[in-house]
Amino acid sequence: MSSVDPRPVLIAGAWSLSDKVDTFRAIHPRTLQPIGPRYPVSSRKDLQIALQAGSEAAMAMAVTAPEDVARFLEALAHRIEARRAGLVQTAAQETALPPSPRLAEVELPRTTRQLRQAAAAVRDGSWRAPTIDTSTHVRSMYGPLGGPVAVFGPNNFPFAFNSVGGGDFAAALAAGNPVIAKANPGHPQTTEMLAAEAHEALLESGLPPAAVQMVYQMPYEEGKWFVAHPLLGATAYTGSRASALALKRAADLAGKLFYMETGSVNPVVILPGALEERADEIARELVASCLMGTGQFCTQPGLVFVLAGERSEAFIADVVRGFEEAPVGTLLSKGVAENLVRSVEGLRKAGAERLTGGRPGGGEGASYRNTVLRVPARRFLKRPVDLEREAFGNETLFVVAEDRTNLVAALGALEGNLTGSVYTRRDVSEDDLYDEVASVLRRKVGRLINDQMPTGVAVCAAMNHGGPYPATSHPGFTAVGIPPALLRFAALHCYDNVRPHRLPVELQDRNPTGRLWRRIDGEWTTADVPS
Amino acid sequence: MSSVDPRPVLIAGAWSLSDKVDTFRAIHPRTLQPIGPRYPVSSRKDLQIALQAGSEAAMAMAVTAPEDVARFLEALAHRIEARRAGLVQTAAQETALPPSPRLAEVELPRTTRQLRQAAAAVRDGSWRAPTIDTSTHVRSMYGPLGGPVAVFGPNNFPFAFNSVGGGDFAAALAAGNPVIAKANPGHPQTTEMLAAEAHEALLESGLPPAAVQMVYQMPYEEGKWFVAHPLLGATAYTGSRASALALKRAADLAGKLFYMETGSVNPVVILPGALEERADEIARELVASCLMGTGQFCTQPGLVFVLAGERSEAFIADVVRGFEEAPVGTLLSKGVAENLVRSVEGLRKAGAERLTGGRPGGGEGASYRNTVLRVPARRFLKRPVDLEREAFGNETLFVVAEDRTNLVAALGALEGNLTGSVYTRRDVSEDDLYDEVASVLRRKVGRLINDQMPTGVAVCAAMNHGGPYPATSHPGFTAVGIPPALLRFAALHCYDNVRPHRLPVELQDRNPTGRLWRRIDGEWTTADVPS
Repeated sequence: MSSVDPRPVLIAGAWSLSDKVDTFRAIHPRTLQPIGPRYPVSSRKDLQIALQAGSEAAMAMAVTAPEDVARFLEALAHRIEARRAGLVQTAAQETALPPSPRLAEVELPRTTRQLRQAAAAVRDGSWRAPTIDTSTHVRSMYGPLGGPVAVFGPNNFPFAFNSVGGGDFAAALAAGNPVIAKANPGHPQTTEMLAAEAHEALLESGLPPAAVQMVYQMPYEEGKWFVAHPLLGATAYTGSRASALALKRAADLAGKLFYMETGSVNPVVILPGALEERADEIARELVASCLMGTGQFCTQPGLVFVLAGERSEAFIADVVRGFEEAPVGTLLSKGVAENLVRSVEGLRKAGAERLTGGRPGGGEGASYRNTVLRVPARRFLKRPVDLEREAFGNETLFVVAEDRTNLVAALGALEGNLTGSVYTRRDVSEDDLYDEVASVLRRKVGRLINDQMPTGVAVCAAMNHGGPYPATSHPGFTAVGIPPALLRFAALHCYDNVRPHRLPVELQDRNPTGRLWRRIDGEWTTADVPS
Repeated sequence: MSSVDPRPVLIAGAWSLSDKVDTFRAIHPRTLQPIGPRYPVSSRKDLQIALQAGSEAAMAMAVTAPEDVARFLEALAHRIEARRAGLVQTAAQETALPPSPRLAEVELPRTTRQLRQAAAAVRDGSWRAPTIDTSTHVRSMYGPLGGPVAVFGPNNFPFAFNSVGGGDFAAALAAGNPVIAKANPGHPQTTEMLAAEAHEALLESGLPPAAVQMVYQMPYEEGKWFVAHPLLGATAYTGSRASALALKRAADLAGKLFYMETGSVNPVVILPGALEERADEIARELVASCLMGTGQFCTQPGLVFVLAGERSEAFIADVVRGFEEAPVGTLLSKGVAENLVRSVEGLRKAGAERLTGGRPGGGEGASYRNTVLRVPARRFLKRPVDLEREAFGNETLFVVAEDRTNLVAALGALEGNLTGSVYTRRDVSEDDLYDEVASVLRRKVGRLINDQMPTGVAVCAAMNHGGPYPATSHPGFTAVGIPPALLRFAALHCYDNVRPHRLPVELQDRNPTGRLWRRIDGEWTTADVPS
């Protein structure tokens, strides 16, 4: 089907002609011209086929050996590496993200590492938290949801969060669920290439061919129908808050799980002692963190809190200089640039003052000048909701607090965020103020950081890429970090008085691998159940 | 305030006059006459005071020692035991549940056991799943939500699920959150007595006095405002589905966590071999499970599946006899009796045939005759949603499947349920059909049971009193079983590069107790972090 126009969708285990309602093409963010083939906007019929096939695949996967799932995830990682040059080139064209180091040396290896970590988690099985109470004959563990997981990928990570091959995809499959991916329309060809590799990897593995399905786009109303469908297990959505909330509403009404990760403003608090000690170093870190990837990270520092004073003024001036000296990057799309115009306007209307930037252009294609704004905490406290609206891109807003009371009050007025960072003097002399600041931030953020910018997200078991609403829809779950990210896509399966030979191997008396961690009568152990 | 009329509410750390919009009294289910004092229906003002005080208590609890929480829970257990006679007498009057053995020997000891298990979980701390990645300096664990948890208690467990002292109450506090309890209006005096004990226990402990607050009732619209309030951490609701869904909608729209447990029909599948082998025994078990507590259990078997045949006919006849011979109990309230009339009518309209009962009366006060209905699977398959509507009380519905295909199809048409039970012949000769039945049920229920009725719910770590929607709102969580029940009320708290002395003790290198289970670099251990 290599010359099909528009391109086929991957549903029911095969590349098929879409029952389309429209078509679209990717737009080159630098030239703003269409590139690559035409892609279909799927009708409800495509989605219906995918849901039915996904539901059957979910039943088949309930009896698939974990080893098959692990081999699939590893085969996909291997295939992505084998096609690295083409993937990087295509993604760079579609997103304007730098091919090197960003795409080739950072994001692609992160993606394959995630897939391999997911494979390891599946093989190990300890993520299921097998729990055995010997005296009551009750045993339980996490299992799949029983229906496919819809994954909506964002525009800003064409590999690591791609709806095919990205973090949510890996987590959903590792938890034993089929995936129905909805490509991000910003990079359809990258997604098509990843889906082609996933499909081939599937055919080599023991998984049902409909374990991975993919459509490119769907009309707004059909999206709401889709996430609320009875056959669906859950939705993982990463992207803009407005779309997320409309879909969440539809899913909630139908009692369907909906995990959203819609970014945040990631407050960074820089206390006076840190500025006294290392203002230059922190300014460099802040500028780099704000402008990396043209500021298009969920964890970009969008709000920087300092206490009023000469040192803070010098620091702000230094950061402004850094923003002015840095080249203006190309944004992911014209839409991102337009949103940034609107967002900065909104912040200014709410009382923020422009220090630099604040208008479109300055770079190639879709671009907006590197922008720094400021607002006194006193004013921030009057309109906190308007002033903590995310401006996705190369912008940041300083909040200058008149005193400690206003600093703490302004932090207390924040909504839920993914991260919160605090910089203090290297010794313990600022620990009192730190404690006050951290105790407020702890309730507001998923990840509390010291002496570091929020943009680095290590893929490790202790990571939390999550946080209180509206950063995400549930503060108990993380979208990054394996195995915990799998728990979003798991149901708790309890077996009460079930005859021993009918139990899943993970819950039988004998530890199936000798390495599986299980909680037996309250103690974690890799031993067999004592007889 | 012992003679205050109406009774005061417990808000902001003290018994206070309610800013009431109305009053009500409990109704004796046997005499249908009002009993006990008048109780207030709280206005929004009461709720506002409670939310503000609860939010401040949440901040205070963030730095409260776990030992203080544990001592509070134990003190409450002790006080409940000390006041046992009065509590049992009052609850029996308000609910018509048998004082003995049900209330005094079963439910009250279960309640105090839950409180003590929660205390043990708090002291142990392993429920927080402290996770340490040494190479990345990222550490995380579960912590409190940062706001009070609203607990709405059901009518059918005046102690074990009471909004004060019951399972959700214990779990929310053990996870470090204050509770704002909303009493069930069916047993206000029982709840008042429990709240009095909780308040005294609080004053003896190091917890903030507003860690436990309680109101009796609120207008419908104020309930929706309450569960959506920004200061609230989460809501746990056990009760009728219609009210639950209205509140869930309001909470969802505001991004507030809402855990509902609204019961289910708990399919019991009895395969031919089991009937051939032990029909009498199973009939006795079924009748007892259906009529215990006049059938008013979340896990009461409301749907019983058999394959058509002579043995099944004899079995059904036997069960009908059992229902007819058993005394007709008094229901919890006139409202429950009226709902049962409507529910059975609905089932009959949808095609169910009456075998016995099917009309009000037959017992003292609020009562309804022990009722058995039947429907062929063929007809069930035409209107599954109408025929799996819960009829809360002493009723059950047989679904007679024409063949294995229809049996499996009918099970496949079920919505989410708390439990599913399967009875088979004692040897392995029915395992093929078991596998088919169990694989369908596994996706539909939280707890899969063999050779046992669902009404016994052991309070142990492996228990799952939960299940797919609409039985609950999230299939990954359980309302019974400590420590897992705590996770509903927890946020994932990550610490990234946080200086060692600022970490919570649970995440510092040294294991604080030598017994705390932590996941260090992927392995569960009670050891210190290797240096």
